[in-house]
Amino acid sequence: MKSILVFGAGLSSSYLFRYLIQFAPKENWSITIADSSLEAAKARAGKSKHANAIACDIHNKEQREQLVSKADLVISLLPPTLHVALAKDCLRLGKNMITASYVSAEMQALDKAAQKAGVLLLNEIGLDPGIDHLSAMQMIHRIQAKGGEIVSFRSYCGGLVAPEYDDNPWNYKFTWNPRNVVLAGQATATYLADGQLKFIPPNRIFSQTIEVMVPGYGKFESYANRDSLGYIKPYGIESAQTVLRGTLRKKNFSSNWNNLVKLGLTDDTYKIAGSETMTYRQLMCALLTGANDQNLEMQLCHFLNKEQSSKEFQRIKWLGLLEPVAIGIPNASPAQILQHLLQQKWKLKKGELDMIVMKHEITYKLGKKNFKANSSLVVKGEDEVYTAMAKTVGLPMAIAARLILKGEIKDKGVKIPLTPMYYEPILKELARYEVRFSE
Amino acid sequence: MKSILVFGAGLSSSYLFRYLIQFAPKENWSITIADSSLEAAKARAGKSKHANAIACDIHNKEQREQLVSKADLVISLLPPTLHVALAKDCLRLGKNMITASYVSAEMQALDKAAQKAGVLLLNEIGLDPGIDHLSAMQMIHRIQAKGGEIVSFRSYCGGLVAPEYDDNPWNYKFTWNPRNVVLAGQATATYLADGQLKFIPPNRIFSQTIEVMVPGYGKFESYANRDSLGYIKPYGIESAQTVLRGTLRKKNFSSNWNNLVKLGLTDDTYKIAGSETMTYRQLMCALLTGANDQNLEMQLCHFLNKEQSSKEFQRIKWLGLLEPVAIGIPNASPAQILQHLLQQKWKLKKGELDMIVMKHEITYKLGKKNFKANSSLVVKGEDEVYTAMAKTVGLPMAIAARLILKGEIKDKGVKIPLTPMYYEPILKELARYEVRFSE
Repeated sequence: MKSILVFGAGLSSSYLFRYLIQFAPKENWSITIADSSLEAAKARAGKSKHANAIACDIHNKEQREQLVSKADLVISLLPPTLHVALAKDCLRLGKNMITASYVSAEMQALDKAAQKAGVLLLNEIGLDPGIDHLSAMQMIHRIQAKGGEIVSFRSYCGGLVAPEYDDNPWNYKFTWNPRNVVLAGQATATYLADGQLKFIPPNRIFSQTIEVMVPGYGKFESYANRDSLGYIKPYGIESAQTVLRGTLRKKNFSSNWNNLVKLGLTDDTYKIAGSETMTYRQLMCALLTGANDQNLEMQLCHFLNKEQSSKEFQRIKWLGLLEPVAIGIPNASPAQILQHLLQQKWKLKKGELDMIVMKHEITYKLGKKNFKANSSLVVKGEDEVYTAMAKTVGLPMAIAARLILKGEIKDKGVKIPLTPMYYEPILKELARYEVRFSE
Repeated sequence: MKSILVFGAGLSSSYLFRYLIQFAPKENWSITIADSSLEAAKARAGKSKHANAIACDIHNKEQREQLVSKADLVISLLPPTLHVALAKDCLRLGKNMITASYVSAEMQALDKAAQKAGVLLLNEIGLDPGIDHLSAMQMIHRIQAKGGEIVSFRSYCGGLVAPEYDDNPWNYKFTWNPRNVVLAGQATATYLADGQLKFIPPNRIFSQTIEVMVPGYGKFESYANRDSLGYIKPYGIESAQTVLRGTLRKKNFSSNWNNLVKLGLTDDTYKIAGSETMTYRQLMCALLTGANDQNLEMQLCHFLNKEQSSKEFQRIKWLGLLEPVAIGIPNASPAQILQHLLQQKWKLKKGELDMIVMKHEITYKLGKKNFKANSSLVVKGEDEVYTAMAKTVGLPMAIAARLILKGEIKDKGVKIPLTPMYYEPILKELARYEVRFSE
């Protein structure tokens, strides 16, 4: 009997638990689901006799240690800032651990100790980061194996609404943390283009998009992620003259989002006294030069340099930003106000499905000729619990857990899944669940 | 014999010490100049037998207390963050204290204790804040005394180069902290316009300028300061429908500065690895979409939407940003790189003079009619030590010190100079030194 301890039973954990519970009888696993909410943990355990739910305060070191000491493997679905404390417990108690989060500097600092202790702290094994690494590395290694040299590497990923439910003028609904969406693009992005180091300041991130075609799904667009350079070395693509990682949205989303940015609606650096009784219309009047209640529409047209009949104007109007409706949340920043509004307008409703889109575009040189290799992945959700996001984030972790417990993945140290030992079996297993790339 | 203790003997203290030393024999003062650099303190003391210089580590509480305990009045020219520790010493030892800095929340928190102890902690008695308060309050009180009601209050101030030495295409040289100039406008500005609360997000602060005429000196422009609303209540101008405080620059400075902002050159949030050997030209190539060493000029024209012969392009070229010259400072942010370059290009050279410009524009209602009252101040430096900036920051503090020691200003608590007790005698004395407003 092997024991798996999972911290966190939030909305995005559905698929992970389904997979673990499905395999529990065959693999002889016992699964402990620890969450601050016993109810949430119980919901994930369901009626499985292989899973037990417990209430746990992650900040209670004693309880945490007691749980970890009894586990064979720990999976953390906690917020990224909480991983390190847990990783230290795992290190001390000699347990392997899995997260889907980026390796923080604090996590990286545990590498030597983990190597020495023979403990694997596996990170970035969700969707993005996660499936992107697995699939990109498989492509890169295949190209390099036949003597190809990577000239250009572009990778895009986005969480979107499935086309059947794409029924608002923004072509977007929230399928993941809304706050991250509202605050996206507020730091300078770095990438490499034709051998030239490139920076995109926040004021240009959403106006400098790239068109991305996804076979069968049409045109998308991508804005640059914060850091595209950090993976050049880990991926072994030092030969590449162009390296870009971006976020996918439906066509025209970014330029319209940029209007909200330029209006000041994504500013999270100051709070507005009296925002509770202020109306969205008053906020817009405050943000637009020369605007008042009488001329707001005209001033907005002037600001956008568009007619009222334009799609740009209508998208903003559709959000309700011109309405004399009280905002209703006290002492809020513009970004918090916008998020509050968007959570109503961009809500994925009951019965609606989300969709994950990922695409890699690689150019490589073989002999004297350049070749292109494209690969794309589209995953749709099953329902509002078993979403594409939950599937693509949760399954890679669950599969990695199985492979580690079976001894098929043997590794130690602070790792991300870049080698065949990870991507071969995990991509193969993902394909069984219809998470499959088309080349 | 009264003893004045001054912490700080930096470049901007010249006028303050000249005034204090000038009055020392007549007023029977002994002046102690404490600075981390004994040399700097000695330079300020000069040959005066009324002044003595000492080396002092401001973080040495024991030494600080010993000095404060022997003083009758303390003046702090230290960086704003160091005022509070000193203010607490003054409070404990029952000494009055003067600073030219904004009242921080920590300073304000000492108010009750200072009231109780009968100690005056006088702040914001420099130029801006300082002379702006004194002169604005005198105007406001005069208007209100004759029954006028303030409808609109606009106040502008800037430190510039004197017209005789205004010989670069930016019409600007550094006369004060360069870092503050480079990082200006990175927070949302708040003001009131025709009864409407207004926010200006950072992306529009430098494009939303107001023309300001200064009699005898021509056209200037102003961009909004961060917070124009905070003084409505202290000034007693709750009747005003428009309240705006701004920074003055020569005409067209802001739109050209905005080009640097949009390029990403004022970004202080990330460091560039290898910036030491990188050239300014390479940095510009990195910041401009599609730019490389061959096409940089063309891409910059495209970005500015201007010809190479345009003033906008030429201003950027003049700074040296297109030159293949190594930046020379390691691991620097774009803002640090820009500051490093500007400190060479916008240097106020030996023999060149600076100039302070301040203007208040008030509209008030008397009976049923609206009236305008304008008041402006222009002060030029005497030489590179006795600058207009040192004069307008230092003299109000020095004069306030004299009036407090003579018992002509009697106040207690954490204060800023808004009442006739302050502005009447201080403005009168400033006029004797040619710091005089024209109405």
